[in-house]
Amino acid sequence: MTPDTEIFETRSPLLLRGVRRDNRIVDVVIGDDGTIAAIGENAGHDHEYDHAIEGHGRVLLPGLVNTHTHAAMTLLRGYADDMLLQPWLAERIWPLEAHLTADDVYWGTRLACLEMVATGTVGFNDMYFFMESAARAVDEAGLRAQLSYGFIDLSDPEKREHECRVTEGLVDAVARMANPRISAAVGPHAVYTVSAEGLRWCAELARERGLGVHVHLAETGTEVADAVKATGRRPAALLDEAGLLGPRTVAAHGCWLDDAECRLMAERGATVSHNPASNMKLATGRAMPYPALRRAGARVALGTDGAASNNGLDLFGEMKLAALLQKFAWSDPTVLPAPEALALATEHAHAALGFGGGHIAVGAPADLILLETRTPCNTPLHSAVSNAVYACPGAAVTTTLCAGRVLMHERIIPGSDETLAGAAGAASGLVSRARGET
Amino acid sequence: MTPDTEIFETRSPLLLRGVRRDNRIVDVVIGDDGTIAAIGENAGHDHEYDHAIEGHGRVLLPGLVNTHTHAAMTLLRGYADDMLLQPWLAERIWPLEAHLTADDVYWGTRLACLEMVATGTVGFNDMYFFMESAARAVDEAGLRAQLSYGFIDLSDPEKREHECRVTEGLVDAVARMANPRISAAVGPHAVYTVSAEGLRWCAELARERGLGVHVHLAETGTEVADAVKATGRRPAALLDEAGLLGPRTVAAHGCWLDDAECRLMAERGATVSHNPASNMKLATGRAMPYPALRRAGARVALGTDGAASNNGLDLFGEMKLAALLQKFAWSDPTVLPAPEALALATEHAHAALGFGGGHIAVGAPADLILLETRTPCNTPLHSAVSNAVYACPGAAVTTTLCAGRVLMHERIIPGSDETLAGAAGAASGLVSRARGET
Repeated sequence: MTPDTEIFETRSPLLLRGVRRDNRIVDVVIGDDGTIAAIGENAGHDHEYDHAIEGHGRVLLPGLVNTHTHAAMTLLRGYADDMLLQPWLAERIWPLEAHLTADDVYWGTRLACLEMVATGTVGFNDMYFFMESAARAVDEAGLRAQLSYGFIDLSDPEKREHECRVTEGLVDAVARMANPRISAAVGPHAVYTVSAEGLRWCAELARERGLGVHVHLAETGTEVADAVKATGRRPAALLDEAGLLGPRTVAAHGCWLDDAECRLMAERGATVSHNPASNMKLATGRAMPYPALRRAGARVALGTDGAASNNGLDLFGEMKLAALLQKFAWSDPTVLPAPEALALATEHAHAALGFGGGHIAVGAPADLILLETRTPCNTPLHSAVSNAVYACPGAAVTTTLCAGRVLMHERIIPGSDETLAGAAGAASGLVSRARGET
Repeated sequence: MTPDTEIFETRSPLLLRGVRRDNRIVDVVIGDDGTIAAIGENAGHDHEYDHAIEGHGRVLLPGLVNTHTHAAMTLLRGYADDMLLQPWLAERIWPLEAHLTADDVYWGTRLACLEMVATGTVGFNDMYFFMESAARAVDEAGLRAQLSYGFIDLSDPEKREHECRVTEGLVDAVARMANPRISAAVGPHAVYTVSAEGLRWCAELARERGLGVHVHLAETGTEVADAVKATGRRPAALLDEAGLLGPRTVAAHGCWLDDAECRLMAERGATVSHNPASNMKLATGRAMPYPALRRAGARVALGTDGAASNNGLDLFGEMKLAALLQKFAWSDPTVLPAPEALALATEHAHAALGFGGGHIAVGAPADLILLETRTPCNTPLHSAVSNAVYACPGAAVTTTLCAGRVLMHERIIPGSDETLAGAAGAASGLVSRARGET
């Protein structure tokens, strides 16, 4: 089935005909404003539309959202694995990153967007460098993103001044784009890389400009021990003192949060982004305490981290891994059941970033995906949610819509060959430059 | 690209043109005996062949082998999840299994074979019921399999006699098939479900008839504690006393093996099948001690377990999970690096089951797969092995050959629609029968 190419261009009313939703077959009408106009068994008869997509009884789900990644690190996919954290960073990752250009970040982010669209992800929370290039890539790819510059001052006032200027530059650039799918956030990297002054400056800018906050928190035991030793306080308390914990905050990892910190996250309305693959691959030593966060009432969402430490951006694999890791870590097979794992990548993730999707209802943004049912991972179909979480890879997604625009249909994504070639070229150029100077 | 349908029928000399092997582009010639006749940059010029497959620079790997599954349990995929082990078995799985028919097992095994071919798996080690039906499914699907009947006597002499007869029946039936890709094994379920007499009978039959042994071992702490309480000995010692540990033995799970048991497995030349997804989903409480088994020199291979506890049979996901779980469980990111994870699913798995593949060399069986490179999971291609283990799902496989026969090409598998329909029908019939009687 080769899709009508107009499907990828139109924003006029669109019909998804005959898709599976809660064990019923329904039509979904999408208005030209990119929101869901109608859902129902005969919605296709009662509404006008310019284009129709045949749903073939495929499973309709909300588009997934990745709440923590460094998108352009796709260029480093498979460049170095299976190493201790410090030599991995110091000998392999940082030397390569030192040669990154704005053009590399553009191509790496395009590749990340391609991978996300191909695996049913419609939006993401990004932190990296050359973020104006990332913004251009997201704009062209048609996804949603909250973009932050990774602010690292290492307690050096001169460096801090530079980080502030770059952060403000990104916020202004994103404002000028006026793309409703793209927002800026402050990105104080972590308590061990940003001074108290830097953290406070980020919090202040976020408050003034109404921005999200994207930060790493309690990823390793060392981070916690060092913070306690230096300040007498644990990392979440340090973020809170700086004014960085609030409903717009997404804190990644959270492996070493204690019970009091879990309650603090809940009280502030902050989101913890669970990144199971990265935590396991880098052997952080403890799983994010999902049961404690759930008891406390904190919002938990899902993330992949960057492709250098995962090594992919497929949230389907990450949903399965989250459900498996949480059961294993707390020796309880009832922890994080499939519907909750799906919510981590949909409802909670959209809410954490203010994307507005994550549920399927009239008026909600048409951030939607379809999953193939004529495939082993969806056969039998005792439970569409169980199959989505435990059995299907992102490759089972046939169709991805973001804000009503068709980004993939019948697994075809316009421009994918150019993106793959551009990213492969950028990656080999990056490695060549790094080798030439070492 | 729609493949020439003759590709699926021919066993005459076949050329794989222009595939990627160790960063070189080579041709592979496959003789009409199903083995590799030549490999080299110009092998296509120097040899005659009847059909050619264009390799498009795709990554060539050995076909994967799944060393522990219950194939027909695909019919139960997603039927029950996220429960404690005992209610999961007693309230959901066993009541459904009580209604299984030979026809169900045929369709469930066909579905499993379809899923395996689609994800690059060319052979598997199976244990279930109605195994003559499983044998027919494997024969028709074209894979390799070692098939065992799950022998459970619960120390009841009458039941033991029945299990012995069924086991002998399977061994005779497989012998009559005379299919070189299919072998029989004895399948004593585990030390907690089979009497000492039953274990010894299985060992004796295996010795007499030259069969493999397929058993569960040290999956849970309860299994170990109960064995010690009842007999004063741990499960591996009980298997050894019965004569069940040898080079043809595959023992699944092994989560709770202690150091002495790891050394015993190595001394006997037995294989431990690592099943990370199942162990995590059922929260066995401990990861298989890969570092200790490796130190002892024991062979470790990979398995998915049945689809009721995984819920898929994609060994690509399982390779990633094994590498991640081992790092996390032992707090060391250098444990089970990507090349070892690949070996668990290829070299070690073929060797454990005597399939003869797992490496790519002249004279070896042409059990081969090709991975798409024009796809995000293989872009960039810094390391084909890292990408295969950490980034690509089984859906990245374009082509699967077993014993020189093309089972999938350009992701097309002849007869897949009939298999999906047959399996879906069997699954819903099974659920209806179970509901009708409760």
